[in-house]
Amino acid sequence: MNNTQAIYAESRGWLPEPTLRRLPWYLAYVVMLRRDDVEYVSSRGIADAIGVDASQIAKDLSHLGVRGKTRIGYEVAALERELRDFLGFSSGHNAVIAGVGSLGGALIQDRGLQRYGLNIVAGIDTNPNLVGTRAGGIVIFGYESLRELIDEHDITIGIVAVPASQAQETADRLIDAGIRAIWNFTPFRIRVPEGIVITNTSIYSHLAVMYNRLDSQSRTKE
Amino acid sequence: MNNTQAIYAESRGWLPEPTLRRLPWYLAYVVMLRRDDVEYVSSRGIADAIGVDASQIAKDLSHLGVRGKTRIGYEVAALERELRDFLGFSSGHNAVIAGVGSLGGALIQDRGLQRYGLNIVAGIDTNPNLVGTRAGGIVIFGYESLRELIDEHDITIGIVAVPASQAQETADRLIDAGIRAIWNFTPFRIRVPEGIVITNTSIYSHLAVMYNRLDSQSRTKE
Repeated sequence: MNNTQAIYAESRGWLPEPTLRRLPWYLAYVVMLRRDDVEYVSSRGIADAIGVDASQIAKDLSHLGVRGKTRIGYEVAALERELRDFLGFSSGHNAVIAGVGSLGGALIQDRGLQRYGLNIVAGIDTNPNLVGTRAGGIVIFGYESLRELIDEHDITIGIVAVPASQAQETADRLIDAGIRAIWNFTPFRIRVPEGIVITNTSIYSHLAVMYNRLDSQSRTKE
Repeated sequence: MNNTQAIYAESRGWLPEPTLRRLPWYLAYVVMLRRDDVEYVSSRGIADAIGVDASQIAKDLSHLGVRGKTRIGYEVAALERELRDFLGFSSGHNAVIAGVGSLGGALIQDRGLQRYGLNIVAGIDTNPNLVGTRAGGIVIFGYESLRELIDEHDITIGIVAVPASQAQETADRLIDAGIRAIWNFTPFRIRVPEGIVITNTSIYSHLAVMYNRLDSQSRTKE
């Protein structure tokens, strides 16, 4: 994306990924401050706590339209609220989860997702023995129910937690049925048509990075 | 890191993060091919399937020391084995998990981690009521047992799955006790001393990116 495109995109509320990844760090820190009954925090104070440059923090927060007061800083409670709203954590986004095996079953049980605005309203599985049963409080359906589920519950997000070999096919089916964003938890690189949002949380590729850094440091010490 | 530093780092087996994140995509694809009894694959074939440039794939795979044969390509079974070994997925890395609440409990149950070389051998929790109980087959200990556990089981990795407000303190305790890599699942930005590996899997910041892209696309359509 060039500069003109970036400015146009920002006018529609689109923000660069690095900014969107830093904002939750600030939120996590101000939640701590609020619990400790701290009333105000400066960008310098956030900077010292989490190791991000103060001017970067001020710039990131300017996207939210919040301004710190000179010599006082940001009001902690207001900043927490603004960050939560801006990041979409205070509004509900309905999701369906495809694959309720090991990882999918685990994700359903993570209550943290709900606190960050994600409601997993139904599970989808190809295994006919699972259809009609419940996992972590949600009902599992077959793929033939997908379109109806999406319409009925206004579902925009499809979580892909199937084996990697079924990832692309699963995403295609979700998109065909009306899903607008794919959250891919498999190591497979899913391809989506233009206009569909794809987010990869590749837990196992993070392991690869961690192992490499550990090995490489062991060799440095030798 | 400048170019000289990068070359020096690579001599110790250090690889850039983008490369380490692409390699698991190739692995996921060759696992599919092997299951379908395909014997050879070219970098062009991988490129078409997962949407990465063929020359990039050939360059990435050259780090492993595997070379494709002209007009035939890579042997699928050998490539799978090489990728698994190179990424550290075929050797065991012992880990302790701090925090066995909602997300921690879910991670323990994800059998996928074991297949990617991670053995979670024990849980650690501050809650005295949990100490001595089991979660997902592993025993939960108090922090006073940490040093002994690490020595006894040769544990290098500490998974941080506590509430964000306790993330930094938890990481400090793990590092004090001898942990060499922190895998942070909280939204808090943990700071570690030099020489300690830190890997962040911030599930909730991925949600923020996804929500932003969805909203921004809705506005484009208006």
